[in-house]
Amino acid sequence: MISYTEALEKILSEVRHYPSELISLDQSFGRVLCEEIKSDRDYPPFHRSAMDGFAISSQNYTPNQVYPYHRELPAGMSMDLEKDEKAIRIMTGAPVPEGLDVVIKIEDANLMEVNGQKQVSFSTKEIKPWLNISKRGEDLKTGDLVLPKGIQIGTSVASLLASLGKDKVSVVKAPKVHIISTGNEVVPIHSSPLPFQIRDSNSYTIKSILSKYKIQPESVTHVPDLESEITKQIQIGLEADILILSGGVSMGNLDLIPSILQKLGVELIFHKTAIKPGKPIWFGKRKNTIVFGMPGNPFSVQTCSRIFLEPFLRESYGQNQLPSYKLPYHGTKQRKGGLTEFFPVQLETKDNTYLKPISFNGSGDVRAGVFSDGLGIFPSDLSQIQKGDTIDFLPW
Amino acid sequence: MISYTEALEKILSEVRHYPSELISLDQSFGRVLCEEIKSDRDYPPFHRSAMDGFAISSQNYTPNQVYPYHRELPAGMSMDLEKDEKAIRIMTGAPVPEGLDVVIKIEDANLMEVNGQKQVSFSTKEIKPWLNISKRGEDLKTGDLVLPKGIQIGTSVASLLASLGKDKVSVVKAPKVHIISTGNEVVPIHSSPLPFQIRDSNSYTIKSILSKYKIQPESVTHVPDLESEITKQIQIGLEADILILSGGVSMGNLDLIPSILQKLGVELIFHKTAIKPGKPIWFGKRKNTIVFGMPGNPFSVQTCSRIFLEPFLRESYGQNQLPSYKLPYHGTKQRKGGLTEFFPVQLETKDNTYLKPISFNGSGDVRAGVFSDGLGIFPSDLSQIQKGDTIDFLPW
Repeated sequence: MISYTEALEKILSEVRHYPSELISLDQSFGRVLCEEIKSDRDYPPFHRSAMDGFAISSQNYTPNQVYPYHRELPAGMSMDLEKDEKAIRIMTGAPVPEGLDVVIKIEDANLMEVNGQKQVSFSTKEIKPWLNISKRGEDLKTGDLVLPKGIQIGTSVASLLASLGKDKVSVVKAPKVHIISTGNEVVPIHSSPLPFQIRDSNSYTIKSILSKYKIQPESVTHVPDLESEITKQIQIGLEADILILSGGVSMGNLDLIPSILQKLGVELIFHKTAIKPGKPIWFGKRKNTIVFGMPGNPFSVQTCSRIFLEPFLRESYGQNQLPSYKLPYHGTKQRKGGLTEFFPVQLETKDNTYLKPISFNGSGDVRAGVFSDGLGIFPSDLSQIQKGDTIDFLPW
Repeated sequence: MISYTEALEKILSEVRHYPSELISLDQSFGRVLCEEIKSDRDYPPFHRSAMDGFAISSQNYTPNQVYPYHRELPAGMSMDLEKDEKAIRIMTGAPVPEGLDVVIKIEDANLMEVNGQKQVSFSTKEIKPWLNISKRGEDLKTGDLVLPKGIQIGTSVASLLASLGKDKVSVVKAPKVHIISTGNEVVPIHSSPLPFQIRDSNSYTIKSILSKYKIQPESVTHVPDLESEITKQIQIGLEADILILSGGVSMGNLDLIPSILQKLGVELIFHKTAIKPGKPIWFGKRKNTIVFGMPGNPFSVQTCSRIFLEPFLRESYGQNQLPSYKLPYHGTKQRKGGLTEFFPVQLETKDNTYLKPISFNGSGDVRAGVFSDGLGIFPSDLSQIQKGDTIDFLPW
C-alpha cells in the first residue's frame, strides 16, 4: 500500500491544464489568473503629493522663510509653475508641479495674509528632496511584471487589477465535473430514510469543495449498487474532465466500482493508501478524464477532498498549494497501526496560536469536521504526539 | 483621537441584524445559518457495521468456534435473525441484526465450505461487545442541538446539513449596500487616465470584500468632488443598509464628505482613529443606515475593510469574528509616532510557522497587499518589534 506522500505525488503528476476564459473583473473574485499582468504605466503615474500642504522646492530652503502663494492644486488636476511662483497649496493625490520637490504638511505651515497677499512660512528646520512625495514609478515601472499566472484574485489582487485598468481578465476555465454517489443505503436528502438508510451527504461535501474553485458540477447522480446502472452512469461520467465517485471502493463484495472502472478502460493509478480515514481511495484515468473513487464515510470524503482533490485542482489551475502550517498541538496521540492519520482540530490563541483536539467517533461520525478549522496530521513514522509538540496543520 | 480598539468597539456596538431567507442547501455554501439545527433522528440511525466481515454475538464466544452461515447483509437492507442463525456475512454500513453485537472483519475470518454448508471461524482471542460497530445514537441523539445560528456553511457543515435532510436552510439575507467612490482624480477602470488621474480601484476592493459575505452591492457609483453631485448620490446611498464611501475624508479642503454627511443628518460616531494606514476613517449612522467613510488610498481601503467592515458584517450576521493569531515575526520594527500600525505579511513555514515582512511603499502603493497572507499588527504601546517576537496576525 502506498504512503500518503506517494499517493499525493501520483495525483499531482496527473494534473491537467484547463483552458482560459475572459471575464469581467467584477465576476472574477476567487478565480485564478491565467495571464501575466504587466504594469501599463508608472505607479504612481506622477510625483504624487502624499499630504495636504504646500509644495515648494528644497533648494535654498531656510526655516521661517516667507512664501507668497495664490493657487491651490487639488487631486485630478495639474499645474505648471508661473514665473516666480515658489509655493502652491497642494492636496493629497495631486501631481507635484515640475520645479518643486517637497510637500510640507498643512499642520506645519503658518498661514498669513499681508495686504491681501496670501503668504506661508514653515518652522521645519531641515527638509530633504521628495519629502511627503510618492515619486513617479517608485511602486512600479511601465512594463514591470506585476502578477504571475496562477494567482488567485483576492481583494489585494482585484484592487491592483482595477488600478491597472484590467476590466476584463483571463482566468482558468472551470473543468467539467461529474459526481456519482453510490450505495443501496443512500437516499436523496429530501427523502425520509428508512431506519437502515442514510442520506446522500457526500455529494454536498464534494459540491461545497468544488464551489471553492468556482466549479459547478455538470451532473450529480446517485446510483444503487447495481452493475448495469453504475456502468451506465460511469460511462456518462467519463465524458467529464473529472469524475468523482463516492462509496463502493472498500472490501465489501458489493463494492463494484473498481471492477466496473477497469472494464470501462479506466487505468488504475492506485487503490488504497496508508491513511486514516480514506484508506480505500481509488485513483485512475482514462485519456483526459481523471477519476477519484472516494470511500463512502462522510469524514473520509471531507479528508480525501482536502488532501487529494484540492491539491489536484490547485495544481491544475497553476496555483500554489494551500500552505500547511506547523503549530503546537495541545493534545496527545498514541500510534495504533501504521497509517498517516488526519484528525479535526481547532485553532486557539492565547499567548500564542496552537491546535486543540476535537472529539469525534471516527470517519462515519456525521459531525466529525464541524467546528474544526482544519486537519492535524499524525505521520506514520511517529510513535506518539505529546502535548506541545509541533505538528502539521492543513486549514480547511 | 480614539484608539483602534475603541473604534472597533464603537463599530461593533452599531451592528444591525438582517432578516433571514430560505434557500436550497446547494446555494448556501459560504452563507451564514440563521436557524438552530437539531438532529432529526439518532446518528448513526442504527447499530452500523464499521467493517466488512461477520456479525456474531459476543456471548459465549470462543476462538476457532465454527459458525455456519448462509446469508449476506449489504448496506441499505435489514434482516431479522432466523431461528438458530448465529452468524451473518455483513458489509460496511449495514445495520447489525438484533441479537448480534460484534463484527469481526473479513481479514480475520477463516472461510470454509463443508458438504455445501458455508462455515466461518475466527482466531481472534477475545472480543468485547460492540467491536467494529458504530452504536445507534453514539454521534447524535434525536433532538440534540447540532448547529447554532451564526455558523458559516463550510464543507463539514454542508455535509452535516445534508445528512440531516436539510435541503432548504434559513440563512442571513445579505444587506443592501451602496458604494460611492469620490475624487476628481479618479476615473473608471476601463478608461485611459490622464497622467494626473488614477483608476477607481477602491470600488473593486470593497466589492471583493463584500463578495466574501455574498453581498452584491445594489449600486456602485463614482462622483467628482462637487458638493451638489456628492449630496445627490449620498441621499440615494442612505436608502441602503450600509453606505460605503471612499476618498474625501482627510484634511484637504476639497474633502467634502464629512460636512455633507452631517448636513444630511448622518450622526457622526467617530472621525479619525489612531491607526496607520486608514487614520482619516469616518463612521456614522442615520436611522438604520450605517455609513463607512474610508480614506482614498488603496491599501488604506483594504486595511479598513479588513479591520472594521468585516468585523461589522460578521457581528451583524451573528458569526464569530475571524480569529486573530499570535505568531513569531521574522522582521523588526521601530516605533514612529503613536499609531497602531497594520502591515502586510506573508506566512512561511519551516520548523514552525512564522510571519515574514513584505516591502511596500506606504498606503498609496497599488501592490502593497498583493502576495501577502494578511496583516501584522504593531500595537501603539510597543516601542519595537524584535525578530522572533510574537505579534498579532489577521489573515485576509
